[in-house]
Amino acid sequence: VIVEVIAVGTELLLGQVVNSNAAFIGRLLAESGLDAHFQVVVGDNVGRIASAITAALARADAVLLTGGIGPTQDDLTREAICAATGRRMLFSDAYAAELGDLWAASGRVMPYNNLRQAEHPEGAELLANPKGSAPGLSLLVDGRLIFAVPGVPAEMEQMVAQHVMPRLRAAAGVEEVLVSRVIRTWGLSESRVAELLDELYGATTNPSLAFLASAGEIRIRLSAKAASEAAARVLIAPLEGEVRVRLGSTVFGADDDTIEAVLLHLLEERGWSLATAESATGGMVGARITGVPGASRVFVGSVVTYTTGLKISLLGIDPELIASHGVVSEEVAEAMAVAVADLVGADVAIGVTGSAGPDLQERPAGTMIVGVRTPEAVRSRTLRLPGDRERVRTYATTGALHLARLAVSGEWWGP
Amino acid sequence: VIVEVIAVGTELLLGQVVNSNAAFIGRLLAESGLDAHFQVVVGDNVGRIASAITAALARADAVLLTGGIGPTQDDLTREAICAATGRRMLFSDAYAAELGDLWAASGRVMPYNNLRQAEHPEGAELLANPKGSAPGLSLLVDGRLIFAVPGVPAEMEQMVAQHVMPRLRAAAGVEEVLVSRVIRTWGLSESRVAELLDELYGATTNPSLAFLASAGEIRIRLSAKAASEAAARVLIAPLEGEVRVRLGSTVFGADDDTIEAVLLHLLEERGWSLATAESATGGMVGARITGVPGASRVFVGSVVTYTTGLKISLLGIDPELIASHGVVSEEVAEAMAVAVADLVGADVAIGVTGSAGPDLQERPAGTMIVGVRTPEAVRSRTLRLPGDRERVRTYATTGALHLARLAVSGEWWGP
Repeated sequence: VIVEVIAVGTELLLGQVVNSNAAFIGRLLAESGLDAHFQVVVGDNVGRIASAITAALARADAVLLTGGIGPTQDDLTREAICAATGRRMLFSDAYAAELGDLWAASGRVMPYNNLRQAEHPEGAELLANPKGSAPGLSLLVDGRLIFAVPGVPAEMEQMVAQHVMPRLRAAAGVEEVLVSRVIRTWGLSESRVAELLDELYGATTNPSLAFLASAGEIRIRLSAKAASEAAARVLIAPLEGEVRVRLGSTVFGADDDTIEAVLLHLLEERGWSLATAESATGGMVGARITGVPGASRVFVGSVVTYTTGLKISLLGIDPELIASHGVVSEEVAEAMAVAVADLVGADVAIGVTGSAGPDLQERPAGTMIVGVRTPEAVRSRTLRLPGDRERVRTYATTGALHLARLAVSGEWWGP
Repeated sequence: VIVEVIAVGTELLLGQVVNSNAAFIGRLLAESGLDAHFQVVVGDNVGRIASAITAALARADAVLLTGGIGPTQDDLTREAICAATGRRMLFSDAYAAELGDLWAASGRVMPYNNLRQAEHPEGAELLANPKGSAPGLSLLVDGRLIFAVPGVPAEMEQMVAQHVMPRLRAAAGVEEVLVSRVIRTWGLSESRVAELLDELYGATTNPSLAFLASAGEIRIRLSAKAASEAAARVLIAPLEGEVRVRLGSTVFGADDDTIEAVLLHLLEERGWSLATAESATGGMVGARITGVPGASRVFVGSVVTYTTGLKISLLGIDPELIASHGVVSEEVAEAMAVAVADLVGADVAIGVTGSAGPDLQERPAGTMIVGVRTPEAVRSRTLRLPGDRERVRTYATTGALHLARLAVSGEWWGP
């Protein structure tokens, strides 16, 4: 089954909005093994939308229109479907009444033009839109499927996943579901991960295994097709186990887990509190940690000692330590972690010092050093990070959180 | 002149890449007053790319293809142009020699398939690609223009701006250049800005004036068309002056100015140093400030006192002040700013306390309070921000930087 996506909206042609809807739908189609040969964008013009529909019906088995089904005068997708298919426009009294109730419930009077949303080409089924008021459309014309869904991403995503994909899969005779699970790792290069998983890669096509490098993390995506989601998960489980054994402590989570949430959870389990002392990252480590709701159960606070003077006066770092090792050194990163734990009364502390660039400092730009103090040990590691100031700071922040996880879980490795 | 953009690449159909190139080109076309009726995406298939070109030539005056001009076997845009236009494929010995020199200069042997990049339809002009190795193409067929540019955004942007737009503008008889300047403001609602500028809006079409709301800022875009960039800037200047008079201290910069860079510059001019004391923003204010290269000339450091206990023990906030006003209060925000200035030895300090949500605290989620201490005064303001935790924290961070600017520049307004 070949599916053509037509995005309707002059704002797309003008570049005011990027057509991310088409990419979202493209991924869903690919996951179900459905083909796509063309995607089209067309402005708010009945004749041109109709001509795009006609062209798509001539070369695809199904047409999915996004946008142009709202209440305003420039929402023309319904009219264009009628023009392209020769169907009459009908009016749904039932949906009109529903709309009226919806407005009444919010204590407002419905503007008259909202009734346009109750119009639909003859033979169309209305698709529920729990996130908005414009219903979608599903229509069968000469053996070809036509769908219209909202252009608002959240409404589109819900309707496509809930209503459009099942109908397309049924039409294509696709009876399997595809389930993916992403194993998230930090600390190894992509080539090292590939080496460790070499025997698993290609040994099986269902479940299958793929690598994704993303912002310093290597992710391993395990995908399986089966008759049900549960059956697919049964196929994935032993492969996931094998991957976890081979990658060991570099695995920090799966799917939507973030390193900051994983670290906070681990600390809460141990009953340990957390603090940070930052220099080149300027507060980014604390900002990431406090982005997690409920961080206050674990996080006490932090200091940003941006100047060397403040490292000495506020944290009490020994000036001679700085003089002999330099301010960008593992010794100073460790001393910062130890000092801030004492200062604010925390069990675990992260210290970060470094040269983010572009200004020249004592160590080359991209040299970022993380120290971690736990009740059990004090550790540090030097990271050498490529890229500009913002990238170096972001990667160092992520690295600091990962190194804290390894120290807290007792899985610290390397030098 | 109607221009149709065809993006070539199976990765676009699969949703692995979002077609942001089309949006970029759409904006450039709109700025020059050129029309776009359709955009198309097509996979790496000669027949289908050719059919997309044929369809575009039938309804547009110019066709701009992005992608598919690299060296590999699935780069098929050149072949498809030949197929759609009936032109022969020629080989540029000169460009092949250039490519060979390029590889030799980097000490490597050119893989044979790179010679594909020296192929081009008969009659095509090769367009230089200083950011990559694949040249673009420009071709006139029966009075219609065909362009092919790389799919890599940086290469595409450079080539479209440098080579494609001038040719399209010449074909359309557009002799003017469009220059825009963006005036950036904070602190007023979009409707209030519109009210203040009401007499200017629509009073003139060249220069013209438009509003953009973006992440808490209101931006006013002034655009003018003229025979040269200098002449356009002369048209904009008096309107900009008028806008600045009407909006007063809410204007903090123009074009690419960021509030953190503006604030640091202002402090450096005054010879004042800066510190922050944060609670709900968890370090985000310090992180934004230290994102500016050279921040160390002004920024001393900060503390994040996430717990009430740490506000008392590290900053020395009076427990009775907290008991009587609450920890989320203007009194506490001001006390935090005053205390951190003393603690780290800074002239100016920002204090932030608040309830970012979703957990219930003493004040409703979204209540964020900023205090600012300067050598001249101590100020505070309560912000009530909508949205989720991340949005509230981000807007509060931006708000804190803006309020610090107003306090430092002596332009503080409001209650």
